[in-house]
Amino acid sequence: MSRWEPDALGRLEQAAFALYAERGFDQTTAAEIAKRAGLTERTFFRHYADKREVLFGGSSVLQDHLVQAVADEPDSAAPIDAISAALQSTGRIFDERREGSRQRQAVIAANPELQERELIKMSTIAAALTDALRRRGVHDTTASLAAEAGITVFRMAFERWLVDTGPPDLARHLRDSFAQLKAVTAEGTG
Amino acid sequence: MSRWEPDALGRLEQAAFALYAERGFDQTTAAEIAKRAGLTERTFFRHYADKREVLFGGSSVLQDHLVQAVADEPDSAAPIDAISAALQSTGRIFDERREGSRQRQAVIAANPELQERELIKMSTIAAALTDALRRRGVHDTTASLAAEAGITVFRMAFERWLVDTGPPDLARHLRDSFAQLKAVTAEGTG
Repeated sequence: MSRWEPDALGRLEQAAFALYAERGFDQTTAAEIAKRAGLTERTFFRHYADKREVLFGGSSVLQDHLVQAVADEPDSAAPIDAISAALQSTGRIFDERREGSRQRQAVIAANPELQERELIKMSTIAAALTDALRRRGVHDTTASLAAEAGITVFRMAFERWLVDTGPPDLARHLRDSFAQLKAVTAEGTG
Repeated sequence: MSRWEPDALGRLEQAAFALYAERGFDQTTAAEIAKRAGLTERTFFRHYADKREVLFGGSSVLQDHLVQAVADEPDSAAPIDAISAALQSTGRIFDERREGSRQRQAVIAANPELQERELIKMSTIAAALTDALRRRGVHDTTASLAAEAGITVFRMAFERWLVDTGPPDLARHLRDSFAQLKAVTAEGTG
């Protein structure tokens, strides 16, 4: 048998999300995911360390993409604009797979431990974006505030994008949410 | 023997922080904390479910205080100002115990699992503040953005307050950080 399995990663992910939704995350095994995907358990473990990583493996890909996108922004871009542009650049990738994102979110929402993991992953991305801004010469506090605010905006925009029944457009939700954050903070008299 | 132990809570906390610093969190037991505090193990467990709760028991007190403070703000206060005022109202309490906060932070910084717990606690507080704003009639997204941005500002201000060698003034660091967040978001052309 050939070891070449076209789109094994995508098939494993689809099978996993479907099984998590049907049986619950805790009741699903790696062997069952592999079987549903028509692949061997060995193939599963070539791609993922465990069944949780099917949900979170994408986080490091997202993080690398965002860090590179921040680095690629023109020097003249304000920190918050560099963050905003980087986040918006993920829009098309997410838009192509909103249904998968919805399944993933439903699994996470049903499991407090997965919610914690998601929170930690987002915090790790915020730290990576802070570092990416620092490497652009942005001062520590400004870098932290811009990156953390960006991740807050991303989470809000993402939630609204998930429930949006129109054509998927994450970048638009991001722009709207950044504008709202600007309005919210501008109200401060403090 | 009298069951009345003056300031048992404070003594347990002091003993715990000192032992965590000396031996590490993982190497310290509840029995040792009680002994160091000159109290019984039974007294320890009357106050805390486990040794981790010595570090995080204050989070729910802080959360209740903040939620009440947001509710007490005048109706005319903008959401971000209600959050800012609530956070600043904790300043005096923290200022009285900066050294304890520094010890606590050092223990948490040395232990990834405790860092995750802290992150989750802060996220829980952000959610509680979002609800507190909603009860004031603030729209969902604005409430989330103001509360989450407030917690981001709190974390930044708190870090700077911890390392500040001058007289402790958390409220001032909070005002500075809110002003910086406003400046950072105002730069956005997005």
